[in-house]
Amino acid sequence: MTDNTIKYQLDEEHIPKAWYNIQADMPTPTPPVLHPGTKQPIGPDDLSPLFPMSLIMQEVSTEREIEIPQPVREIYRMWRPTPLIRARALEKALGTPAKIFYKNEGVSPAGSHKPNTAIPQAFYNKEAGVKRLTTETGAGQWGASLALAGAMFGLDVTVYQVRVSFDQKPYRRALMETYGARCLPSPSDTTAFGRHVLATRPDHPGSLGIAISEAVEIAVQDPETKYALGSVLNHVMLHQTVIGQEAMEQLVMADAWPDVVIGCAGGGSNFAGISFPFIGKGLRGEAKKPRIIAVEPAACPTLTRGTYAYDFGDTGHLTPLVKMYTLGSNFTPPGFHSGGLRYHGMSALVSHLKELGEIEAVAYQQRACFDAAVTFARAEGIVPAPESTHAIKAAIEEALRCKREGKAETILFNLSGHGHFDMGAYIDYFSGRLVDASYDEGELAAALADLPAVG
Amino acid sequence: MTDNTIKYQLDEEHIPKAWYNIQADMPTPTPPVLHPGTKQPIGPDDLSPLFPMSLIMQEVSTEREIEIPQPVREIYRMWRPTPLIRARALEKALGTPAKIFYKNEGVSPAGSHKPNTAIPQAFYNKEAGVKRLTTETGAGQWGASLALAGAMFGLDVTVYQVRVSFDQKPYRRALMETYGARCLPSPSDTTAFGRHVLATRPDHPGSLGIAISEAVEIAVQDPETKYALGSVLNHVMLHQTVIGQEAMEQLVMADAWPDVVIGCAGGGSNFAGISFPFIGKGLRGEAKKPRIIAVEPAACPTLTRGTYAYDFGDTGHLTPLVKMYTLGSNFTPPGFHSGGLRYHGMSALVSHLKELGEIEAVAYQQRACFDAAVTFARAEGIVPAPESTHAIKAAIEEALRCKREGKAETILFNLSGHGHFDMGAYIDYFSGRLVDASYDEGELAAALADLPAVG
Repeated sequence: MTDNTIKYQLDEEHIPKAWYNIQADMPTPTPPVLHPGTKQPIGPDDLSPLFPMSLIMQEVSTEREIEIPQPVREIYRMWRPTPLIRARALEKALGTPAKIFYKNEGVSPAGSHKPNTAIPQAFYNKEAGVKRLTTETGAGQWGASLALAGAMFGLDVTVYQVRVSFDQKPYRRALMETYGARCLPSPSDTTAFGRHVLATRPDHPGSLGIAISEAVEIAVQDPETKYALGSVLNHVMLHQTVIGQEAMEQLVMADAWPDVVIGCAGGGSNFAGISFPFIGKGLRGEAKKPRIIAVEPAACPTLTRGTYAYDFGDTGHLTPLVKMYTLGSNFTPPGFHSGGLRYHGMSALVSHLKELGEIEAVAYQQRACFDAAVTFARAEGIVPAPESTHAIKAAIEEALRCKREGKAETILFNLSGHGHFDMGAYIDYFSGRLVDASYDEGELAAALADLPAVG
Repeated sequence: MTDNTIKYQLDEEHIPKAWYNIQADMPTPTPPVLHPGTKQPIGPDDLSPLFPMSLIMQEVSTEREIEIPQPVREIYRMWRPTPLIRARALEKALGTPAKIFYKNEGVSPAGSHKPNTAIPQAFYNKEAGVKRLTTETGAGQWGASLALAGAMFGLDVTVYQVRVSFDQKPYRRALMETYGARCLPSPSDTTAFGRHVLATRPDHPGSLGIAISEAVEIAVQDPETKYALGSVLNHVMLHQTVIGQEAMEQLVMADAWPDVVIGCAGGGSNFAGISFPFIGKGLRGEAKKPRIIAVEPAACPTLTRGTYAYDFGDTGHLTPLVKMYTLGSNFTPPGFHSGGLRYHGMSALVSHLKELGEIEAVAYQQRACFDAAVTFARAEGIVPAPESTHAIKAAIEEALRCKREGKAETILFNLSGHGHFDMGAYIDYFSGRLVDASYDEGELAAALADLPAVG
C-alpha cells in the first residue's frame, strides 16, 4: 500500500566528537588570504578585530580533527544526530534502480543546518569574553540560527538582513526577534557604508555583500563586539562536517557507500558539511571516491559561470581578499526564491576542490527545482526550503540517469532545511508567479572585469 | 556556561505497537452518542456513510489495546518516537526546583501532533476502498496533516478551511497544496449549507462548526468519499496515545514519574494523547495518579465555562448528538491566534473525565501565553505554535507554584506543534497588536440556551 521511508537514527553518543578539517588532506594547500591593502598574506592578528582567536586558529589549522567542545555537543543534542532517510517512496515514484538517501538537517530548532556552526561560533565568542555579535543574513536562515545561538549563550545579536528579504520574509525576522535578536534591513543608516549605499540609491534592495560590509563595520568599532559569518569561511565548513560524518556512520548501518554526494551551494557550507568527510576519505585512499556535485541556482552560478580569482567577500571591500570562484563583488543576482544561494563568491575550500577537479558543479533554474520539490514532498512528506530544492533536483536527475543506464547507484544528498518559513515561494509556484530568473550577461561581465588586481 | 537540555530519544522499535484505549478503564461508561432525529443511541451503521467500519469499531471499542497496523508504524517512523526533553534551561530561567519535561510533537513533517491520527485514518480508509476524503480545518494543522496522509496513501483530500484562517494563514494552505490537497474557504458555495450561510451573511468569517457541516455534506453524497475529523472523536484520542505511551517510557529512562501532566485542549486530541496513558495507569491503580491539567484559551473556554450536555458537533446540525462540554454549536469565539483551539465542543472522553473529576481545566488569555512562549523559546530554542503556548503557560505557572512552595515536582507537558507557520502571531505580539480577546457573555448565554433538548 505504501512504500515507506527507512530512517537511520543514531543515539546522541554518536554525535561526532571532532570536526573534520579537510585542510589536512588537500592535495595542495589553498592559496593564502591576502590583506586588501598590502596584498600580502594576512596573519591571525589581522583577523582578531572580527573573530575570537580560537576561531581564527580553526580558520588556518591543518590538523585533521578538531575537538568539539562538550558544551557545543550538549546543545547539538537538541537535534543531532539528524536522521538519514532512505527515500524509498521517491525511488518508487521515479521508477529508478538507484538508492536515494538524504540527511535531514531541517529538524534543528531553526529549521536548517545553520545552527551547526552558529552554536560553536557563539560558544567560542562567549568564552573569549565577547558581549555582542553582528552578522548579515539573506533569507534569514543564518540570522535566525545565530539569534538562537545568542539566546543559548547570552550574547546580544544584531542581524543585517538584505532589505528585499527583510520586506518579503517577515517570518524569519520574527523568529530572530523571538530569540531576542535585533534585525535591521540592509542597507541601513546605522553604518557609514549603508548610508553611502542609500545616498546612491535610496531604494536599494540590498545584497549579502552590502550586509556583510555593514556587520563588519559595526564589529570592528568595539572590542566587545565580534562578527560572525554563516558560510564561506574555513571554520564554518569545518563545523558543518558533523553532517557528513554522521551520514557516513548511518550509511554503514544501511550497508551502503555513496556513488554520488550532492549538496546545494550558496557560500558552500551545507555542501561542505555533507561532502568533505567523503572527499577526505577518498583523498586519503581509504574508500572509493564518490562523485561530488555542488548544485547552484542558474541565477547566481558562482561555480559554473564565475572566475577562480582573488576577490573581496563584501561589496564595501572591507574584508581580506580570498581566492575563490566569484561572480565579482559588485554582482547583484536577479530576484529568486533561494535567498541563501545569492552570494557572489564561494568558500575558498570548495573553490579549491573545484579547481583541483575533486568536485563537479551544476546549475538549475528555480521552476525545475520546485517541480522536483513537489515530487519529493508528495513522496517523502517533507517540504524543503527553496535552497534545498536544488539538491533534490540534482538527486532526481542522477536517479533518472541511473534509470536510463540501468544502474543501481547510491545517491546521497543533504536536505539543508525545511520550507515552512518559505511557503510564500510555494504559493508563487502554484499560482504560476514563480518564474525562472536570469542575470544580465553584461552586468556579470562588468563585475568580473572589476576584480581586484593581485600579484 | 549553558544549562543544557537533556533529550531522551528512543529507537524506532519503541514506537508503541498498540494504541491505548481509555474506554477500557473508565470508572463509568461514557454516555451514548444519539441520533439527531430519534434521540436514540446510534449504532455503527449510522456512522458508516462518514467513516470506514474499522474506525467506527475503534470509536465504540472497550478493548484496552488496539494494535497499530504495520504500515502505520512504518510511516510513524518518519518522525516517531518524538523526543522527550528535560527543559533544564527553562527551569534555570524560572529558578524553580521543579523538573520540567516536554514531549516535542513539532518534529513531524506537518509540524504538529496531527499526523498521529491522519496517517491511520488515511490507512483505514484506503484499506476500505475509499478514494476521497473531506475534512475541515481551522488554522490548518489538521488539514495539512490529512493532506500529508493523503499523499502517503494516494487519496484525494478536500479541506474546508475556516475562511478567516484561509485568508490570514496562506502558508498552511500552501502546505496542503504542496501535498496535493484541495483547500477551500468555508463557508463556500460548494455545499447547500455553505450557500445557506453565505445567503445570511456573505462576509461570514466561518467557524469549525460550519466547515464540519460542509465536509460532512460532501462525504455523505458519495460512497467512495468519506469524512475525516482531526479531533473530538474517540478514535482520534486513541491514535494520539502514542504520545503519552512514549513519554512514559522516556520518563522511565529519566527515572521520573510526573506529578502534573499538561496539554492544551481545543477538541482534546493532543491533551488526550499526552494524558490518557497516565490517567489509565492511575485508574488501574498501577501508579500514583498525576494531576492532569487541560489548558484552554480564555476566548473559547469550553471546559471552564461550558455546560456538560448533549450537543451537535457542527453548526449545520448534521452530526449525531454527543454529550460533552460545549459552549453551544452556535457559539462563535472572537478572533485570536490559536486557530486550533476555537471549537465550541470538547472530546466526549475528555468531557467525561472532567465530569468524573479525573482532570482539571484552566483558561488563559493569549498575551500571557505568548509571554510564556517567548521565555520558553529563548531558553529551549524552540518556537511553539500558538496552541502550544497555552500548555507552556500552564507548565510555567505550575513551576512557579513549585518555587513558591519549595517543591521539586515533576511536570510533563505536550509541545503539540512548532510555530514556524504562525510567525504572524509573533509579529503581532512584538508589535503590540496581539491583544487579549473576549467573547460576548450575552452571545454565550444565548448559545447555551439553544442547546438541543434531549431525554
